[in-house]
Amino acid sequence: MLPKALIAAGTALQLLGLASAGFWESTTHLFRQAPVELPQPPIEARMIVHENEWGVLSTISHKVPGVPFGNVLSYSDGPRGKSWGRPFFYMRSDDPTAQDARANSNASLAVTEAQTGSCRQRHYDEEDPNCARLALAGRLLEVPAAELPSAHEALFSRHPQMIDWPPNHHFVAFELHIESIRMLDQYGPHIEISADDYYSATLHESP
Amino acid sequence: MLPKALIAAGTALQLLGLASAGFWESTTHLFRQAPVELPQPPIEARMIVHENEWGVLSTISHKVPGVPFGNVLSYSDGPRGKSWGRPFFYMRSDDPTAQDARANSNASLAVTEAQTGSCRQRHYDEEDPNCARLALAGRLLEVPAAELPSAHEALFSRHPQMIDWPPNHHFVAFELHIESIRMLDQYGPHIEISADDYYSATLHESP
Repeated sequence: MLPKALIAAGTALQLLGLASAGFWESTTHLFRQAPVELPQPPIEARMIVHENEWGVLSTISHKVPGVPFGNVLSYSDGPRGKSWGRPFFYMRSDDPTAQDARANSNASLAVTEAQTGSCRQRHYDEEDPNCARLALAGRLLEVPAAELPSAHEALFSRHPQMIDWPPNHHFVAFELHIESIRMLDQYGPHIEISADDYYSATLHESP
Repeated sequence: MLPKALIAAGTALQLLGLASAGFWESTTHLFRQAPVELPQPPIEARMIVHENEWGVLSTISHKVPGVPFGNVLSYSDGPRGKSWGRPFFYMRSDDPTAQDARANSNASLAVTEAQTGSCRQRHYDEEDPNCARLALAGRLLEVPAAELPSAHEALFSRHPQMIDWPPNHHFVAFELHIESIRMLDQYGPHIEISADDYYSATLHESP
């Protein structure tokens, strides 16, 4: 028997059409054509973060102070099926975003359902509010040694190529410590989600 | 007989696997598995901008000054097959990005080949340098009345749903006036592209 939380998360994933790659391709257009009961915003936010594997991470440029810089980067918030909600990144030490973060750790991560192709399949323009999207703002900090095993487990399980990235490029793990979240997921104003509600939402049973 | 510029652009598109939606799905994995001769950087940048239809537009938050905010937005740089290289956006007048831009027009747009699924098909992680990506920085300004016909032609041809978006939400057209471009498209450092080289690159013959 599946644990209740897993069933709840599974139902929620189905509503969003996030259950699996095969599910995306075959039946997502059946969902959310008409208004449906979405999961609670913190759970929906966690689902979108967990399902995606890359996003645009924005920082303030250290080269041209005051200018925002959005960088396409891979991330992982935990191994598939183990959502921790903590976005980890793996960047060259001299990546512009890494350098920006050392000078000013303010950062935000943008992710959208559009990345999976789900919105097009449901005939929603990427800017249609039914194509859910998130901006997660906080502090982008290097992962301390004690946390590296978790960061590496999250990153390398979702991005196995990273294990082979050249050591002479000095890749460094970063974590976005989320402080506020803005989500748009249906017609209406943006939803504000607190970091506490986001981090404490449960998607998966602990193993 | 096809005009020379169109043939050149067509060949370049094929190298990048950008020729058409069908082409993406069937044969892109054949390209760029081994090093290939890519088009000149300004042309490649223009191709990626023209092929994509949404991106993450980053501004400095007007609510929390000094904090970067990345917003997922649809855009168009011209009707399909007529690349003008000018990214036009269509936002609610009270969209946070529109409000940010009125307070501080510094903005940057992030787009990536990953959005089309091409990188996964070629077994490249989204952060692999072979998965080409761009950051276009400049000034995000409202489109003046004289330019609105062009902006609307660009936007509504690529995003026909926009025509029916509710008038009471007061949608406004914006253009990102590009001042500098940073591209990563193969192993090596980021490539800097000047706005002049970008805007003057030719992708399509004039009709």
